[in-house]
Amino acid sequence: MSQRSPKTERGDALAIICGGGSLPFAVADAAIRRGRRVVLFALRGWADPQRVAAYPHHWSWMGQFGRFRRVAAREGCRDVVFIGSVVRPSFAQLRPDLWALPLIPRLVRLFRGGDDHLLSGVGRILEEHGFRLLGPQEVAPELLMPPGVVGAQTPSGRDWADVTRGVALLRATSPFDIGQAAVVANNQVLALEGPEGTDQMLARVADLRRAGRIQSSLGAGVLVKATKVGQNPRLDPPSIGPQTVEGTAAAGLAGIAVIAGTTIVAEPERIAAIADRAKIFIVGVNPDGSAP
Amino acid sequence: MSQRSPKTERGDALAIICGGGSLPFAVADAAIRRGRRVVLFALRGWADPQRVAAYPHHWSWMGQFGRFRRVAAREGCRDVVFIGSVVRPSFAQLRPDLWALPLIPRLVRLFRGGDDHLLSGVGRILEEHGFRLLGPQEVAPELLMPPGVVGAQTPSGRDWADVTRGVALLRATSPFDIGQAAVVANNQVLALEGPEGTDQMLARVADLRRAGRIQSSLGAGVLVKATKVGQNPRLDPPSIGPQTVEGTAAAGLAGIAVIAGTTIVAEPERIAAIADRAKIFIVGVNPDGSAP
Repeated sequence: MSQRSPKTERGDALAIICGGGSLPFAVADAAIRRGRRVVLFALRGWADPQRVAAYPHHWSWMGQFGRFRRVAAREGCRDVVFIGSVVRPSFAQLRPDLWALPLIPRLVRLFRGGDDHLLSGVGRILEEHGFRLLGPQEVAPELLMPPGVVGAQTPSGRDWADVTRGVALLRATSPFDIGQAAVVANNQVLALEGPEGTDQMLARVADLRRAGRIQSSLGAGVLVKATKVGQNPRLDPPSIGPQTVEGTAAAGLAGIAVIAGTTIVAEPERIAAIADRAKIFIVGVNPDGSAP
Repeated sequence: MSQRSPKTERGDALAIICGGGSLPFAVADAAIRRGRRVVLFALRGWADPQRVAAYPHHWSWMGQFGRFRRVAAREGCRDVVFIGSVVRPSFAQLRPDLWALPLIPRLVRLFRGGDDHLLSGVGRILEEHGFRLLGPQEVAPELLMPPGVVGAQTPSGRDWADVTRGVALLRATSPFDIGQAAVVANNQVLALEGPEGTDQMLARVADLRRAGRIQSSLGAGVLVKATKVGQNPRLDPPSIGPQTVEGTAAAGLAGIAVIAGTTIVAEPERIAAIADRAKIFIVGVNPDGSAP
């Protein structure tokens, strides 16, 4: 491993493979504040072109491993962070370049399974080719959810019961590599996240409420997000952003609980302000769902 | 228990508390074919008035326990079957009559939890008042899904892998009293049923496919339905009907797997015909998901 010293072989610029949403830019800004040079590898179709333009960047299609390897080497990047929403692509959406062609049988196998299976496989491919995969929490620990509440609202005793049940459910479903989020209200599980993602799941809960299928009153129920047991925390860590808070409020829930120290909060001040306006609590809890 | 002999105390007519869909009528017809007198207690807002009219019946609102007890006694009914879709009512939708008023604190507690919790509580209340709660499978065993395939299509090896994963997932989520159904395609869990019910869950999978969020090809994936572990099989047994088959086809799945002997199939011949036309398999499996 000695020839892989970051400063000697490829330099210490940070490559950020950049999906959708504001999280990649929060990570980039945090790394830059720490004095690191950052190069965005923006994924066409996902990354926001206007925001990407403010940083050194290269655009590429998903699957262009060869191009990524070449450009990252030229830019002196050995450390790689893969961050931002990428709705699971279909295999047909990949545009493998020549270098990636020999990887296709392996990619086909990775596509047969859940998100973790796919992401950790892609992570391993990067590492086998001399890159070092870092989690956003390693380059920007200040973006991690702290223990306790953010904002002015606090969970009630009933809310805590829903949090515990939600965390237990997510632990039980971890081996099945489903979603990272669930909604529990008055001890009733209203939704478990699938490939639709958190925002769509919250919209579903709002629909259920409009259709009269939820018996709990407005302002009861919790969105719970947690890392899957055994998930590589460097890939696709759970995150909450302004949209999550707005979706939680629209679904008529009381608040949001995430595991402290493993969940990314893109814009903490803005999120606290939105939560306070919507009277939504946001709390960082222990991995077993208990109060910190 | 001797004073509860069905023939002496209250006679042997069968009360069918009748929700939505065609299942209550399939159960009624099967009981009548066996020579039993049947009285429908049709729930306003759920039961189909046109079909109810063909049987001896009484209409009532959900929560009219007193009225039910009085009329059922007059009709000579001690055995009760509770069958048909009843989207979980909100507490406000109940119209308890005078007799039911003392039960309200208990009902409030029942409403704090999943469907099983609610249904089994209502079942216990009926039994405490001298009724005998029967499952539809007890009065009409010919409606139970047999082991093996119904119709012409058979599951592939890949389909069997999805069936096994789906059954394992439903077993893992049983303690959380969520839904009885899941969709798995190419080893990826696409959806777990919540209070929205099977038809809406299938519509969600169809939406995910249209939005390009499912990487598996058309004609891959299985709808799996199973009784929750520990569920009272007399209440809300899983069932499939023509709509289930049509929804499965519309979601682009390969077929349906249910646990043989515990799942109700309302109209087996019609369902087989629809499945054959849509090239959908329907298979009854062992409780662990293996082939019978």
